[in-house]
Amino acid sequence: MAEPTLTHLDAAGAANMVDVSEKETTHRIAVARGHITMRAETLELIRSGNAKKGDVIGTARIAGILAAKKTHELIPLCHPLMLSKVNVDIEPDDSLPGLVVTATTKVSGQTGVEMEALTACSLTCLTIYDMAKAVDRGMVIGDIRLVEKAGGKSGHWTLEKDGSEGGT
Amino acid sequence: MAEPTLTHLDAAGAANMVDVSEKETTHRIAVARGHITMRAETLELIRSGNAKKGDVIGTARIAGILAAKKTHELIPLCHPLMLSKVNVDIEPDDSLPGLVVTATTKVSGQTGVEMEALTACSLTCLTIYDMAKAVDRGMVIGDIRLVEKAGGKSGHWTLEKDGSEGGT
Amino acid sequence: MAEPTLTHLDAAGAANMVDVSEKETTHRIAVARGHITMRAETLELIRSGNAKKGDVIGTARIAGILAAKKTHELIPLCHPLMLSKVNVDIEPDDSLPGLVVTATTKVSGQTGVEMEALTACSLTCLTIYDMAKAVDRGMVIGDIRLVEKAGGKSGHWTLEKDGSEGGT
Amino acid sequence: MAEPTLTHLDAAGAANMVDVSEKETTHRIAVARGHITMRAETLELIRSGNAKKGDVIGTARIAGILAAKKTHELIPLCHPLMLSKVNVDIEPDDSLPGLVVTATTKVSGQTGVEMEALTACSLTCLTIYDMAKAVDRGMVIGDIRLVEKAGGKSGHWTLEKDGSEGGT
Amino acid sequence: MAEPTLTHLDAAGAANMVDVSEKETTHRIAVARGHITMRAETLELIRSGNAKKGDVIGTARIAGILAAKKTHELIPLCHPLMLSKVNVDIEPDDSLPGLVVTATTKVSGQTGVEMEALTACSLTCLTIYDMAKAVDRGMVIGDIRLVEKAGGKSGHWTLEKDGSEGGT
Amino acid sequence: MAEPTLTHLDAAGAANMVDVSEKETTHRIAVARGHITMRAETLELIRSGNAKKGDVIGTARIAGILAAKKTHELIPLCHPLMLSKVNVDIEPDDSLPGLVVTATTKVSGQTGVEMEALTACSLTCLTIYDMAKAVDRGMVIGDIRLVEKAGGKSGHWTLEKDGSEGGT
Repeated sequence: MAEPTLTHLDAAGAANMVDVSEKETTHRIAVARGHITMRAETLELIRSGNAKKGDVIGTARIAGILAAKKTHELIPLCHPLMLSKVNVDIEPDDSLPGLVVTATTKVSGQTGVEMEALTACSLTCLTIYDMAKAVDRGMVIGDIRLVEKAGGKSGHWTLEKDGSEGGT
Repeated sequence: MAEPTLTHLDAAGAANMVDVSEKETTHRIAVARGHITMRAETLELIRSGNAKKGDVIGTARIAGILAAKKTHELIPLCHPLMLSKVNVDIEPDDSLPGLVVTATTKVSGQTGVEMEALTACSLTCLTIYDMAKAVDRGMVIGDIRLVEKAGGKSGHWTLEKDGSEGGT
Repeated sequence: MAEPTLTHLDAAGAANMVDVSEKETTHRIAVARGHITMRAETLELIRSGNAKKGDVIGTARIAGILAAKKTHELIPLCHPLMLSKVNVDIEPDDSLPGLVVTATTKVSGQTGVEMEALTACSLTCLTIYDMAKAVDRGMVIGDIRLVEKAGGKSGHWTLEKDGSEGGT
Repeated sequence: MAEPTLTHLDAAGAANMVDVSEKETTHRIAVARGHITMRAETLELIRSGNAKKGDVIGTARIAGILAAKKTHELIPLCHPLMLSKVNVDIEPDDSLPGLVVTATTKVSGQTGVEMEALTACSLTCLTIYDMAKAVDRGMVIGDIRLVEKAGGKSGHWTLEKDGSEGGT
Repeated sequence: MAEPTLTHLDAAGAANMVDVSEKETTHRIAVARGHITMRAETLELIRSGNAKKGDVIGTARIAGILAAKKTHELIPLCHPLMLSKVNVDIEPDDSLPGLVVTATTKVSGQTGVEMEALTACSLTCLTIYDMAKAVDRGMVIGDIRLVEKAGGKSGHWTLEKDGSEGGT
Repeated sequence: MAEPTLTHLDAAGAANMVDVSEKETTHRIAVARGHITMRAETLELIRSGNAKKGDVIGTARIAGILAAKKTHELIPLCHPLMLSKVNVDIEPDDSLPGLVVTATTKVSGQTGVEMEALTACSLTCLTIYDMAKAVDRGMVIGDIRLVEKAGGKSGHWTLEKDGSEGGT
C-alpha cells in the first residue's frame, strides 16, 4: 500500500492545486461544527439582544454564508465551487457558556465541500467575537472540526460522539 | 456606571458600524493565538514536507497574511484599516500534537486590530487543515483567542498564562 | 394551495441560502432595466464626451459587467453562478432626460439570473453618477426592475408596457 | 468662469482617477436615500417575518454596509477610503407600499463619501429584492439619490423636500 | 471568408462579454510562460533564501495560483470558470539571469483557460519583483505569452521553439 | 556596510509583511511601463475599433486602474494603500508593432507605490490580450519595469533611456 502523502505537494514538495478533472461529479455534503465560549453575562446579552432584533446571531450567520462562498479565495489551494446550499445554525449552550455553530454545505461537483463548511463556521465565530468584544475580550473560539462528509469516493464519514470516526 | 452593551447594536437592536471618527489615532497592536491538533504522524509529515520545501507552513502563513488584509470584507462591521504590519508564526508542538499559530498585527489608526489578528490565525489554521486533510480528517482547530492588545483608550491588555487577564 | 412564503427564511425565520441542488439545470436568461435622470446639460456633456472617446458610457458598461460577476459576493443569499453572457446597453433618452440601462444575463444552471441583471443595471447607473457628479449632484437612479425572465420552472415572464405582468 | 467638465475625463476624453493628493483632509459625511416598492402583501410578509427574527431587514442592512466598504472595487474611478462609519436604516412605508432605505457614510479624508452612501443604498434594495422575489417579481427600486453632503470644499449641501437644492 | 473581428466588440463597437452558452463543454488546457530578469546577485539571493525556507518562490507560486482563480474579476470580459487545476512552476535560469515561470490551467468548460494561465504567470512575476525590489529596482518582467492551448473548437495549438505557431 | 537582504524574509527565511509603522508619511509617486506586441493587422484592428467607440483601449485602461486598487490583495506582502491617483496611458507604437502602456500611481503614505503601477501595467496588457486573442494568439507582453519613483527615503530614481539607473 502507498504511504499517505500530502496531496497538495508535488514530488519536489512544491504546493499546487490538485487536478480534479478526472474525479466524478457527485452530490457532496459536509457539516462542520465549532463554538465560541464567553462569560455567562455575554451570552445573556447576545440572547436578549437577539430577542429584540436578532442582529448578533443574524449578522454572524450572514458572515458565515458569505465566507463559504469566498473559501477558494481565502484558502490558496481550494478549487472554486458552485455551492448549491449553505446553511449556518447558531445555538446558545449554557454549559459552555457560549454559542455552538453548525455549518452545512452542499455541491454537485468534483471535489468536497468540507473547507467551505469549516470556513463558514470560523467566520461565524469571528463575527460573534467582533460584535461582543467590547464587553468580553476573553472569548475563545474552539473545537472547529468536520462532523460529517458524504459524496465522493471516500463515502460517508461521521464523527462519533466519543470522538472516534465512523460512517455508513 | 453604565451597563455594558453590545456596541454594534443601536438602541433598537439594529446592527451597524460603530462611528470611530472621534477616536484618537494611535499606534495599535494585537496578538492572537490558536492551534490545530492532529495525529502525530500528520505533524511529522508536515514537518518533513517542510524540511524539503517549506510549503505547508509557507502556504498557510501567506493565507493568514492575506486574510488579515481582507478582515473588513469578511466581518461585516469591521472598519477598513491600513495595516502597517502582519506577522504569522507557525510552530510545531509535539505535546498537542499539532501546530501553534501566532498572528501579530499593527496599525496606526482609530480602531483596534484584534479582529485582523484573529482572522489571520483562523485562516492559517484552515489552510493547514486543507493541505493535510487527505491524510487526517479528524484535525481540530481550537483555542483561538486574543493574547495581547495595546494602543487605544483601553491601554495594554494581556492574557496571563493561567488564563486570567492582566496588563501594564 | 400553500401560502406564499419568503424562501430565504426557514421555519424559524432564520435567513439561509435556498438549496438548489434538486433544481433542473436549464438555460436561463434575465433582462433588467433602469435609468438615471439628470439635467439636459449633463446628458449633453456625457453624449459629447462620448462622441470623442466613449469613456463615460464605456466605463459604466464595464462596471456593470464586472458587477454581474460579483453578484453572489454582494447579495448574501445568492448562489455563485457561471454566467455565460452579460450584456449591458446604455442609451440616452432626451425625454427623461437621462440614460436608460438594460442588462441581459444568461446562464445554464440551477437558479435564475435576475439578481445578476439587476445588479449590473444598478452598478452601471452608479458609475454614471460617479463620473458626472462633479457637474450634477441631483441625478436620480430609478425604475430598476426586471423586464424579462426565461428558463426554470416558472417559465417565460415579461413585464408588459403597461406595467402588468405577462408571459408566453 | 470655466465651463463645467466631467472630472474623470482628461483633455483627450480618457477616463482616469482624479488626483486628490492636494485636496484637504476634512471630516466628510454623505446621506443617500432610495426605496423599493412592492405589493402591500409582500411588505406585510417582510414585516411579519421581521417581527419573528428580523432577517430580511437585518440581512439587507448587512449587505448595504458591506457594499459601502467595496465601493472602490465596484465603481472604477472611486478612490479607496477608510470609512469611519456606515449606517443603514430601513423603514417600511405603507404609502409606497415598500421600504425606504437611508444610508449614512462618514470619513476623514480627501474625497467625498457620496458614492459609498449611494452604493450601500442600492445593494440594500437589491438584497431585499432577492429575498422577496419568490413572492413578488414586480418590485421596483427607485428614487436613489443623494440627500445630504458635508465636508470638502463644496460645503454643506442638502436636497430640499421640494426637490430643490439647498445648504447652509 | 469572414474578416477577423474583435469578438468582444459588438457591431457598434461596444465591449461586452461574448455569449458562450452554445459552445461545447470540453476539457481545456492552457500553458503560459514568462520570465523576470534581474542581476545575478539578486538571483543568487533568492536561490539561497529558497534553500533555507523556500519563501520567495513559494510565496510567488501561491500568488500566481490565487490570481488564476481571480482572473474573471480582473479581466473585465472573462467568464467565471471552475478551474480544475492550476500549476505554477518557477525555475532559475542563469542565462537571463532570472526566473522562468510556467503556469498550467485546466477546466472542463465552455471557454478557454489561457487568460487564467497568463494571469497566473504575470502575478507570479510581480510577486517576485515585490519580494526582491529592496535589492534590485531594475528587474524586468517579459516574454509573457501563451505556449500551448488544447480543447475547444480551435484544437491543439503550440508555440514552436522558433516562435512560429504549430499544433497537432 | 550591511549586506543586501530580501526584506520580506525574516532571519529564519519566513516570508512576512515588513513593518512600515515607523516610516515617514510622504508623497510618493511611481511610474511603470510595459508593452504588448502583436501583428500589425491586430494593432490596426484595435486602432480602428477604437476610432469608433474606444472600447479595447478604454476597457483595458479601466482594468488597469481597478487592478492598481487591488494590488494588496494580489501580491501577498504588499501593504494596503489609499491611492490618491491612478493614471493609465495606452499608446500605439507601429515600431513594435503593439501598444505601450504607462501607469502612474500616487499616494501619501508610508510605503511606495511601485507595485501598484506595475500591477496596473500588467493587467492593462492582459486585458488587451483578452480582447484581441481571437484574432492573434501570438501576442507577447514584455518589458514591464519601473521607470520612475519618487518620495520615501530612497529619493528620486529614474530609469535612463540607455537602461542605466539615474535620479536627481
